[in-house]
Amino acid sequence: MFEKIALIGIGLIGSSIARAVKDQHLAAHIAISTRSQNTLDKAEKLGLGDSYSIDPTIVVKGADLVIICAPVGAYEAIGKAIAGHLSEGAIVSDVGSVKEHVVKALKPHLPAHVHFIPGHPISGTENSGPEAGFAELFDGKWCILTPVAGTDPEALGKLKALWEALGSDVEIMDAKHHDMVLAITSHVPHLIAYNIVGTADHLESVTKSEVIKFSAGGFRDFTRIAASDPEMWRDVFLTNREAVMEMLGRFSEDLSMLQRAVRFRDGEMLEELFTRTRNIRRSIIDAGQETDAPDFGRHVVVHEDDENQV
Amino acid sequence: MFEKIALIGIGLIGSSIARAVKDQHLAAHIAISTRSQNTLDKAEKLGLGDSYSIDPTIVVKGADLVIICAPVGAYEAIGKAIAGHLSEGAIVSDVGSVKEHVVKALKPHLPAHVHFIPGHPISGTENSGPEAGFAELFDGKWCILTPVAGTDPEALGKLKALWEALGSDVEIMDAKHHDMVLAITSHVPHLIAYNIVGTADHLESVTKSEVIKFSAGGFRDFTRIAASDPEMWRDVFLTNREAVMEMLGRFSEDLSMLQRAVRFRDGEMLEELFTRTRNIRRSIIDAGQETDAPDFGRHVVVHEDDENQV
Repeated sequence: MFEKIALIGIGLIGSSIARAVKDQHLAAHIAISTRSQNTLDKAEKLGLGDSYSIDPTIVVKGADLVIICAPVGAYEAIGKAIAGHLSEGAIVSDVGSVKEHVVKALKPHLPAHVHFIPGHPISGTENSGPEAGFAELFDGKWCILTPVAGTDPEALGKLKALWEALGSDVEIMDAKHHDMVLAITSHVPHLIAYNIVGTADHLESVTKSEVIKFSAGGFRDFTRIAASDPEMWRDVFLTNREAVMEMLGRFSEDLSMLQRAVRFRDGEMLEELFTRTRNIRRSIIDAGQETDAPDFGRHVVVHEDDENQV
Repeated sequence: MFEKIALIGIGLIGSSIARAVKDQHLAAHIAISTRSQNTLDKAEKLGLGDSYSIDPTIVVKGADLVIICAPVGAYEAIGKAIAGHLSEGAIVSDVGSVKEHVVKALKPHLPAHVHFIPGHPISGTENSGPEAGFAELFDGKWCILTPVAGTDPEALGKLKALWEALGSDVEIMDAKHHDMVLAITSHVPHLIAYNIVGTADHLESVTKSEVIKFSAGGFRDFTRIAASDPEMWRDVFLTNREAVMEMLGRFSEDLSMLQRAVRFRDGEMLEELFTRTRNIRRSIIDAGQETDAPDFGRHVVVHEDDENQV
């Protein structure tokens, strides 16, 4: 499908792309670059690619597809570095969780002879690093592509075909709209999860060991996404600032109304909301975007030495 | 272990107790009562008990253990109804998510010759009704008992032994402290989850089908607890009002700080928090209170007709 795919960044997403591309022989050569020698060594030990270099300008040479899989904050430097080394007609894409910023950070630096097509696979886990990836990560998930005006349809088709080969359904969307959709479906949920875990962490009236012991009451659900990669998420909030603040504003308004309903004992309002939200989960399950197994089908292994650990 | 256990309310928790008690022969007779004939018929069809009645005064007759498994808002009426029919020395307990209110609502009505010991198993799923229960629900979970001053140690020991037989670790706690601990580990997380699902439900800039399609970015995690029983949760917020508002106040203060960090691009503050929260999940996993499988070990079955359903 491709002659040479260059991956810049080899964490959860990059390493999952490498594994899936290798398994399905979608490229003759996979070249891997990342900023830390330690991570690059891990990738090589895992046999994720065919060639490795700390220098992105070397791996992009002769590549017909370059995918940037680094934290969004690093894009501009990467774009400047690789710009002069990209092959004629190469496709340059990425997997960043924000898209309007990515266009701003990369497009001005890229030569006219490459096809720049931003992308975002809506998939991941709370784990990070090259060891965390797996080939099936994208299977049955959505991947959003946000091509800029005048994008070559053939190049777009090739990138779409790659993601479909990885098992994803591809959606084409405007970058600005993508950022608004992800602000509510991903960014604000992460911010809220990080926040409540932080709140629970510095209470005086409740000890940390009590929070940990009794977290099965609901709290632990939030700790999963609050365990996501700190640097990646820092960059998401710094680069999708406006959309996040807009959606966070909505969330806070609604939460004030809910707090007011609790204060004034408005049971009707509470029950009406709690019934409505139940239907939304049903729709997500029906859409094949969530498991219908109770409690996520979660299986907790109880250790012998609970007490000591708590 | 018991001659006759009377269960008043036979939803997720009540039916799980019935199944576990039956499997392990912990009672010679299980008597079941609930306010709706329809639910009672379901319980009988499922063979959850040995006798069934819509009238709680009948099922408590001769019972040496009575467990109220109904929404907390119904407790006072139940207490008044059964008070005159309880046997000498019977243990009266419950499974409600709030405890100080339960003491206020029940204790004044109960005769001096019974042992009143409130309880709360920290276990459940997002499903409700007698069909949703299963015998292993309490296995490896915590159960908190909040005995009032002067509780008979022998009665307390018997109730503790029952929960341990169901697989739970038992913690003894003051009712007021329980309500504070659960406000942060369970009640506020539920309120926040209900709130963000509600916020996403009435946006103009993002369609509901987009929220559903791209919910894998984090949003769907919140929909699980936002699918919990509406009436039960309405009563939790109405009866643990002060603790919920206290913890919600903390959450909102912290969220304002976080919003400010986003507004003023304070990447350091964001990364510091995101790193701290990651460690808390690790502690919960080490304590055997959460699975360490990525993405909760979630397995989504992708339907053929996704598109149509979205």
